[in-house]
Amino acid sequence: MFETEVIEVKKVKMKSPILIEGLPGIGLVGKIAADHLIREIKAEKVADLISPHFPHQVIMQKNGVMRMIKNRFYHYNGKKNDLLILVGDVQAVTSEAQYEVTGKMLDYAQKKGVKFIITLGGYGTGRVQPSPRVFGIVTHKPLVERFKKHGIIFGEAKGSIIGAAGLLLGMGKVRGMQGLCLMGETHGGFVDPKSAQAVLETLSKILEIKVDTKKLDERAKESEAFAKKMEKEALAAKGMPIEHTKHDLSYIR
Amino acid sequence: MFETEVIEVKKVKMKSPILIEGLPGIGLVGKIAADHLIREIKAEKVADLISPHFPHQVIMQKNGVMRMIKNRFYHYNGKKNDLLILVGDVQAVTSEAQYEVTGKMLDYAQKKGVKFIITLGGYGTGRVQPSPRVFGIVTHKPLVERFKKHGIIFGEAKGSIIGAAGLLLGMGKVRGMQGLCLMGETHGGFVDPKSAQAVLETLSKILEIKVDTKKLDERAKESEAFAKKMEKEALAAKGMPIEHTKHDLSYIR
Amino acid sequence: MFETEVIEVKKVKMKSPILIEGLPGIGLVGKIAADHLIREIKAEKVADLISPHFPHQVIMQKNGVMRMIKNRFYHYNGKKNDLLILVGDVQAVTSEAQYEVTGKMLDYAQKKGVKFIITLGGYGTGRVQPSPRVFGIVTHKPLVERFKKHGIIFGEAKGSIIGAAGLLLGMGKVRGMQGLCLMGETHGGFVDPKSAQAVLETLSKILEIKVDTKKLDERAKESEAFAKKMEKEALAAKGMPIEHTKHDLSYIR
Amino acid sequence: MFETEVIEVKKVKMKSPILIEGLPGIGLVGKIAADHLIREIKAEKVADLISPHFPHQVIMQKNGVMRMIKNRFYHYNGKKNDLLILVGDVQAVTSEAQYEVTGKMLDYAQKKGVKFIITLGGYGTGRVQPSPRVFGIVTHKPLVERFKKHGIIFGEAKGSIIGAAGLLLGMGKVRGMQGLCLMGETHGGFVDPKSAQAVLETLSKILEIKVDTKKLDERAKESEAFAKKMEKEALAAKGMPIEHTKHDLSYIR
Repeated sequence: MFETEVIEVKKVKMKSPILIEGLPGIGLVGKIAADHLIREIKAEKVADLISPHFPHQVIMQKNGVMRMIKNRFYHYNGKKNDLLILVGDVQAVTSEAQYEVTGKMLDYAQKKGVKFIITLGGYGTGRVQPSPRVFGIVTHKPLVERFKKHGIIFGEAKGSIIGAAGLLLGMGKVRGMQGLCLMGETHGGFVDPKSAQAVLETLSKILEIKVDTKKLDERAKESEAFAKKMEKEALAAKGMPIEHTKHDLSYIR
Repeated sequence: MFETEVIEVKKVKMKSPILIEGLPGIGLVGKIAADHLIREIKAEKVADLISPHFPHQVIMQKNGVMRMIKNRFYHYNGKKNDLLILVGDVQAVTSEAQYEVTGKMLDYAQKKGVKFIITLGGYGTGRVQPSPRVFGIVTHKPLVERFKKHGIIFGEAKGSIIGAAGLLLGMGKVRGMQGLCLMGETHGGFVDPKSAQAVLETLSKILEIKVDTKKLDERAKESEAFAKKMEKEALAAKGMPIEHTKHDLSYIR
Repeated sequence: MFETEVIEVKKVKMKSPILIEGLPGIGLVGKIAADHLIREIKAEKVADLISPHFPHQVIMQKNGVMRMIKNRFYHYNGKKNDLLILVGDVQAVTSEAQYEVTGKMLDYAQKKGVKFIITLGGYGTGRVQPSPRVFGIVTHKPLVERFKKHGIIFGEAKGSIIGAAGLLLGMGKVRGMQGLCLMGETHGGFVDPKSAQAVLETLSKILEIKVDTKKLDERAKESEAFAKKMEKEALAAKGMPIEHTKHDLSYIR
Repeated sequence: MFETEVIEVKKVKMKSPILIEGLPGIGLVGKIAADHLIREIKAEKVADLISPHFPHQVIMQKNGVMRMIKNRFYHYNGKKNDLLILVGDVQAVTSEAQYEVTGKMLDYAQKKGVKFIITLGGYGTGRVQPSPRVFGIVTHKPLVERFKKHGIIFGEAKGSIIGAAGLLLGMGKVRGMQGLCLMGETHGGFVDPKSAQAVLETLSKILEIKVDTKKLDERAKESEAFAKKMEKEALAAKGMPIEHTKHDLSYIR
């Protein structure tokens, strides 16, 4: 295995599935939202994605068993549309790797019938918001009108979307897919469960499913702890002293 | 998609087309000249080039719609020769990537019948010139005489030509193509519409087409603003603090 | 040769072989243990592994003959199980390269019939232990019980296993193999023959073979000297001044 | 073209050719010796080697014509053995690239019938020698005796040989070829024509050809000037200020 690989662990026929992506990024907003969604709606794991572009490490679990660093696809049996939810430990680091891994994600999503993608992330403003807004960006102009009604703000977010949240839409569009990126307003310098909650509430309105967000805070803490551990390990792997890490938040990307 | 890809959006039969390249480089001279040329002669977009060697980001546009980072080919219906004009947001960053992307550009150009290439760029001198001269470098010795008559200065520019402006000629020559690089004299430390104008005027003499350069200045400002934004994003993508950028002009390459 | 290559120098039919890995890593624990094992049980070299992901250097030997930087596989004719022991000068440096090289190692191991892997390494604690413990991590839950009886401690080691010791198990598991990583407690800041001895004693209990560890100390010194030389050369190759190396122990990874 | 490519410009049948390599390296010793050899014996260019692993630049020549950065093969019609001499502007920079490029060099050499390789380089000692000695390293033990008689010193040089001078022998050996590396004693911190002369004199004894070394000094100056220019350009390509270069000699590798 020298290329990124999607290993299907359960073959499921999916009904017009929508791909939902929530990988680690700014404020861990997308990750927290997607991880919480999976647990609340009891989505079922259908595939693992492993990649030579992830760190060359395996994780030691408390029970004495190791596991590879990976991304995971979950399936949820929806009313109108099934959901294919993409979560994971990390994103590929280099630019070339992001394109390669995103391509493999889309290959699998297309094979399962995905035609629409919703990516979740944070939009860093450098300020703390008591009630974070949710910004949107779409692949095709007519989608702006369709999603505006859910309170999503269009035309205000500027700059660019880095990583899978952006590339899945960009490369998906090239393949004839449509999509939406939901970005929760966030400071950018720390983990933000409030922003994740705002994104998740908007998403649940779009998908017309109910998601209880009561336990979101405590799960955010688990996510943060794991992200910090990954960051530490990454530094150790590079031979950098772990003591220097302190309150380094560069993992929140 | 893991390789650079040229996506033809309009199939056009071209009449002995000349490839004109103006991607971001020193002083943005080539980019400003080519962008202005496209708009003034109303050239029509025929292909997009996307690449895993470009930044792993998508650009958020004011209308709420995203777009990928890319290079673009435009077509112009000339009298003797059609023009195939190559412009874009960025150049690939690493050396290997430059060779790969340039190869794909030449594949497409050859498919459309290109046998001659003119690349546009700046030649940094560290000095500000009131009326910048235009230096030339060619792929084959006899071309020196042919282009000297247009006031292009040969034999004075030293060193090497970095990026697509040089490699398109070098790799094109290996494929049996001929070409010319036009370099406007420029300081090197800032965006230089005056140098771009000198290059464009020389180019229009060679091509025997008229190009109004009145609006060139204001378009140069757009180019500069966009280049600065790209630079900022690139730093953000690397987790570098944006505050440090200040007046960093390293994007002018 | 642009890919990693395993060059079989002796074709041997192996009896249910177990792969034992001991490449350079934290405190050189795994390397010292495996190098010592090979010499004591008089294992025989069966294959070389060379890779473009190793340093672009050849080593000058005292006899005036050069040799490539490589990893080596040794074979030992065991009672129940044969052993296929993997040792070497270096590990690949980048993450992508580790995945590629590990894949080639597993290809060869599978071809020889390997179904079980034991990797050897150190577990850095930042403290010096008079009698270092041995920690274990397995690929499958039931193996915990099986190996506990040998005094191996499960569930205490945290974080992740970097490099071949981890990836061989992780990628091997994907291919249906099982495995165990033995980690000797070590400070992490220097070469640790005592920890290597603890690991080797545990390993010999598991394999039910006798290994004399008397000469282990002096061999550890050879390993350390070689590792230091490699480090120096690596710095020289990067154009870094060798004087700065001093007591840099970053090679102990 | 995305891979390294050898472009044969003249097809010549060669008589048991020996490959002689002299690319840029420590003190430019190998390069000066090989460049001088080519001119004195009037060897004829038979092939160019271009590579995406070379800098993404083209060189502007005084006559107004550009050329790619490349390595070159020259042919010389010898009495017993023909010579195939490899010289060039640069070596590939990364480790992976060195393996790839060296592989392509060997492909071509094998196609022309090469079975023996002599690589030329410097051996840095940090001291200036009035009459530099020549050290040797061979691929196979019996060659030590064979070359000792020419005054070459074996068993004294330690450490490793970096780049093409080492890899050509190492990878050639894997393909069943034999070879010798000649290293002129040199300080390591500056260009050393004296050391190049010592190497060239030893080489001419081995090859039983006469080479006048009178003009070697002045040619060494050209080599140094070109190497400095390349270094400057390389820094400029990375966006580094050229002012900082001063007396940086890191190009001498």
